[in-house]
Amino acid sequence: MAHIDLGVDETQFPGINGPMRFRPETAKPLNELAEVLLRAPHPLTAGERELIAAYVSGLNECNFCCSAHSAFAAAQLDTGMHLVDQVRTDPETAPVSAKLRALLRIAAAVRDDGRKVTTEMVDAARTEGATDLEIHDTVLIAAAFCMYNRYVDGLGTLAPGNPDRYTDAARRIVEHGYLRDE
Amino acid sequence: MAHIDLGVDETQFPGINGPMRFRPETAKPLNELAEVLLRAPHPLTAGERELIAAYVSGLNECNFCCSAHSAFAAAQLDTGMHLVDQVRTDPETAPVSAKLRALLRIAAAVRDDGRKVTTEMVDAARTEGATDLEIHDTVLIAAAFCMYNRYVDGLGTLAPGNPDRYTDAARRIVEHGYLRDE
Repeated sequence: MAHIDLGVDETQFPGINGPMRFRPETAKPLNELAEVLLRAPHPLTAGERELIAAYVSGLNECNFCCSAHSAFAAAQLDTGMHLVDQVRTDPETAPVSAKLRALLRIAAAVRDDGRKVTTEMVDAARTEGATDLEIHDTVLIAAAFCMYNRYVDGLGTLAPGNPDRYTDAARRIVEHGYLRDE
Repeated sequence: MAHIDLGVDETQFPGINGPMRFRPETAKPLNELAEVLLRAPHPLTAGERELIAAYVSGLNECNFCCSAHSAFAAAQLDTGMHLVDQVRTDPETAPVSAKLRALLRIAAAVRDDGRKVTTEMVDAARTEGATDLEIHDTVLIAAAFCMYNRYVDGLGTLAPGNPDRYTDAARRIVEHGYLRDE
């Protein structure tokens, strides 16, 4: 049970959904940020961006966000959940592009502490073809999930154990995005 | 110099201002979130909320955000920068209300890891008069600054050393808020 009374049945509105219903004024920019970073037209596919979100949430051990964004990534990648699992286990050996691997290294550094991002990491990503926009958005996706993860866990929200819940949520996200009024 | 070409003179647009000009699509929800959390009508004063932001940014050792939000807090607290310094040095002995002290403990836990927030911490804040809204917003302010701090430092932006720069920025924030188009 969450630390505060969210005014919802948490089994129906688990994870971030409860706090977002409790405080629609903050839900609005939080959802808009997710929509721009993860869904808007972009040189990185939606699947690749969700993969960065799932990877960072896994490093932060946030069960709800990691399960959700792993499902959202899997639903939008040809290689599905198998690739998500490989990236979460070891991005260095996972079969992703050299560019995405370099961006995942930057994301891991940001998660740890922004100051851990080095010129060498950024140059390596650029050598593999990453643009300034892709580097910027990778930094902000990683930073944003350090927020979402802490928001969800800091309020002690429920993370469903049944994987079908996340697959169902993935269908809604792929179809309607983060701005839907559910 | 920032890790990417932000397209601005960083001495004129230091810290988060450069990335916000580089990517207005993400700047919009980032500013809206700050406005709701730190400026909108609230049972905690704007000074108290900026104090939480400054305290978390100090724990994250983010020079730009800590200097900026310390100045924004000082400009909106009767006790000014002296109280900000006391809170940043040791919130347990700083002359703040018992409620704010309990909320600062929650903020520090969120900064470390959302899972560090305990039922006891939340009950203690409630005993001192904190409402669910104040607890929610404290968690989200702390979580959000874990994002802003990583965003600013992950891109290697400039943090001015001259304190006058932050005092000037505080005047603009107090007068116009976070949504101004500067």
